[in-house]
Amino acid sequence: MDLAIRLDSDAPVPLHRQVYEELRRAILTGRLSKGKRIPSTRALAKSLGISRTTVTVAYEQLLSEGYLETTVGSGTFVCCQLPDELLNSAAINSFHKESHPPVQLSNYGAILANTEIPYYQEPNLPISFRYGQPSIDQFPLKLWRKLLSRHCSANLDWLNYPTDAGGYQPLREAIACYLSRSRAVQCEPDQIIITSGSQQALDLVTRLLIAPGDGIALEEPGYPGARYTFLTQGAKLYPVAVDESGLVIEKLTNYSKKSLKLIYVTPSHQFPTGAVLSLPRRLELLVWAKKMGIMIIEDDYDSEYRYGERPIPGLQGLDHSNSVLYIGTFSKMLFPSLRIGYLVVPQHLVSLLTRAKWLTDRHSPLLEQKVLVDFLNEGHLESYIRRMRTHYNQLRQILVQTLKTYFDQRVTILGEKAGIHLMVRLKTKLSDEEIIHRAAEVGVSMVTAQPYYLKNKPKGEFIFGYAQLSSAQIQEGIGKLALAIVE
Amino acid sequence: MDLAIRLDSDAPVPLHRQVYEELRRAILTGRLSKGKRIPSTRALAKSLGISRTTVTVAYEQLLSEGYLETTVGSGTFVCCQLPDELLNSAAINSFHKESHPPVQLSNYGAILANTEIPYYQEPNLPISFRYGQPSIDQFPLKLWRKLLSRHCSANLDWLNYPTDAGGYQPLREAIACYLSRSRAVQCEPDQIIITSGSQQALDLVTRLLIAPGDGIALEEPGYPGARYTFLTQGAKLYPVAVDESGLVIEKLTNYSKKSLKLIYVTPSHQFPTGAVLSLPRRLELLVWAKKMGIMIIEDDYDSEYRYGERPIPGLQGLDHSNSVLYIGTFSKMLFPSLRIGYLVVPQHLVSLLTRAKWLTDRHSPLLEQKVLVDFLNEGHLESYIRRMRTHYNQLRQILVQTLKTYFDQRVTILGEKAGIHLMVRLKTKLSDEEIIHRAAEVGVSMVTAQPYYLKNKPKGEFIFGYAQLSSAQIQEGIGKLALAIVE
Repeated sequence: MDLAIRLDSDAPVPLHRQVYEELRRAILTGRLSKGKRIPSTRALAKSLGISRTTVTVAYEQLLSEGYLETTVGSGTFVCCQLPDELLNSAAINSFHKESHPPVQLSNYGAILANTEIPYYQEPNLPISFRYGQPSIDQFPLKLWRKLLSRHCSANLDWLNYPTDAGGYQPLREAIACYLSRSRAVQCEPDQIIITSGSQQALDLVTRLLIAPGDGIALEEPGYPGARYTFLTQGAKLYPVAVDESGLVIEKLTNYSKKSLKLIYVTPSHQFPTGAVLSLPRRLELLVWAKKMGIMIIEDDYDSEYRYGERPIPGLQGLDHSNSVLYIGTFSKMLFPSLRIGYLVVPQHLVSLLTRAKWLTDRHSPLLEQKVLVDFLNEGHLESYIRRMRTHYNQLRQILVQTLKTYFDQRVTILGEKAGIHLMVRLKTKLSDEEIIHRAAEVGVSMVTAQPYYLKNKPKGEFIFGYAQLSSAQIQEGIGKLALAIVE
Repeated sequence: MDLAIRLDSDAPVPLHRQVYEELRRAILTGRLSKGKRIPSTRALAKSLGISRTTVTVAYEQLLSEGYLETTVGSGTFVCCQLPDELLNSAAINSFHKESHPPVQLSNYGAILANTEIPYYQEPNLPISFRYGQPSIDQFPLKLWRKLLSRHCSANLDWLNYPTDAGGYQPLREAIACYLSRSRAVQCEPDQIIITSGSQQALDLVTRLLIAPGDGIALEEPGYPGARYTFLTQGAKLYPVAVDESGLVIEKLTNYSKKSLKLIYVTPSHQFPTGAVLSLPRRLELLVWAKKMGIMIIEDDYDSEYRYGERPIPGLQGLDHSNSVLYIGTFSKMLFPSLRIGYLVVPQHLVSLLTRAKWLTDRHSPLLEQKVLVDFLNEGHLESYIRRMRTHYNQLRQILVQTLKTYFDQRVTILGEKAGIHLMVRLKTKLSDEEIIHRAAEVGVSMVTAQPYYLKNKPKGEFIFGYAQLSSAQIQEGIGKLALAIVE
């Protein structure tokens, strides 16, 4: 038989591969039918003007893959067992795939498919007041690199799994010490589960505790990252008002009959208002949660940055009834791409959460955990935080002052005592969209607070993240904004 | 009033902190009752014989935390708003927490709580035939360190989030090229979702597709890591027999009426038998899955290591109906603590999976993704694989030969053509437990295949991972084993 095979000796693909591809295609498209005898290697090599070895390599591959079969003494044939349905498929040669089968999703999948998730996809503008972004310019990169290199070189240990699914044991010990010193969190190292950022901590807890229809109370306004996690797990959300002392507990207790299962709070620095939950309210919350048998998620996402006052001890340290699941992260303190957060859980939930972490993604990368141990134990973290606190404090003062200078009576500033963002209320007749649009035209990216409200979205409320900006940028940004939205 | 406060000037805790702690405890235990006036800073300093500044610092902290309040002109008082229930709590001083409230778990949580998850907690023995552990001795550590350092130094980019939740775009491009070259996987880079190892890929897919009661067909014996993920999501499992050509398709089609939603297969190197799914069966499987509207998870966990034959193209590359979700990982190729795996999904599922990854843990660490891009694009991966293939091949041959020498007719070896482990059937009267026990006594760690079977667990089947051992260790280990279990 004569087999028309296109070969291109100038192509980057080796000739034997070309022969293989062409024969395979011929078989799959039916040009070479089942059971058909194909030329000997010698014959094909001759007809194509290529070496016999080239053809032999191609045939061997096709034999090993089951496209061809040999019968001793009688030659090589197209395999008889190839199913008819796959043959004669014109699409075999093309990347184009047929339309997909209808996919039936889980409850989680179906909710997620119908939920628009707001990624951080900000417009690329010269000055951005995007929040949640720490300053990375001052990060002790040289030190971090030194520590990375130290652990890469020391031995091969870091290439292997850590033995414990809850995380690298020395890191859990270092975190337990750090939390006890700085946050009055009381725990044993084994109560700490290392997670891939605080988001995974939130996701694990929700997945374990929340069944569709379960109620979760959360701050209004509040952190949307948590809200979407709760929603996709099928939770019913009960927003609770926030004032200058944080969550209004008496509003929460209104919900007592509604079978709440979880309360999600950000007591150190309420997101996004910046309110600090007062001690009396903390104690009230704990008492109430205990009485009702409700668990509390304490998300301590940026408690390190407080200006003027020492932080109030976390709920976890005040709790005596194992009701608090404490979540922390190093992404906000150090850098966003460091995916190391942690959960501090009551002793009786340790085993369950460790299993969940193991089943979800086994464990977090070991090298970074080792580096972080040194960073904590050698005191670098605390000295970095001190340095950054001074730095952020300056930026904060400049932002507050500049806002007052330009907006005077038309601005109210909230949450300025802590964190790395402010919440700002502007008195204006313009819609938020109009303000964002006008700001963008002068190169300033603004973040409205509307998405952080479940109901009654306000007008003129904006979040100003300032950590990633310079003093000059802050002044320029606010100046431009003021001019752009002047009425 | 006189306030008895214990101070210890030799303690490592600063005096102002000691004063703070003592007062706080006095308030919380009710020794200082609500509304009670406390001594002036001057008076307390005098009575304790310490500086007034020390006392002032402590008072300020207590004021800022809400334990104390001041009334202008009349002094400092214990805050009136502290709730009664929290006071008089003798436990305040102690780390001991009360017994926990009853926690009601989600369906997932409840199954997980009742499922024993087998961690890798192997006994610490000199020679371990544990599987799934690549050799790390030959890992090009210097090169990896150089690449780490390159990306740490170049700029600060890597400290920030990657902009795309699906993963670092250049890595997705590099993987698409690599898969097309080495596995005949056909995809655009945006169909690739970077995950935290293959386990997260498996978990995401299961979570999105499987509702409690949904059916999943899986190989028997099979990979328990997948099985536990399916089980905790509430799936019904349908085991399908495996022979020397992999999954027996006609056994699968028996299940057609049982509303299967997913099929989980390891076609390149069936885990743990090592069988390679033949091409005719691959095509049959695809045809059947398409007809039934069932999705296929193709777990290509160690397709790189094949001895003698080139790999058969993945199911994904043969599929023309968007039925295949392809899972791969770099942990087996490079090192276990590198948490980078990936999913290749049909175009219509990209958005959903990206959202799920984002909600689960945002994204994977960026630095390792950048390093991996260079490792792939500069050809290091493929040359490392070539080198390791030769290395593993030698070890494999030694293991096979040693087994045959010592056990002769009493051993059957399966799956020797690929991967980094063998499946071995020993003819013996001893139970698996007895064999493991005797082996441990002579310092050899053995892995029985029993946990990989859902039903009809066999006797005398063992997995021999050899990648992490030396030739001498393999020979010594098998020699000792043979002696230990001789009958």
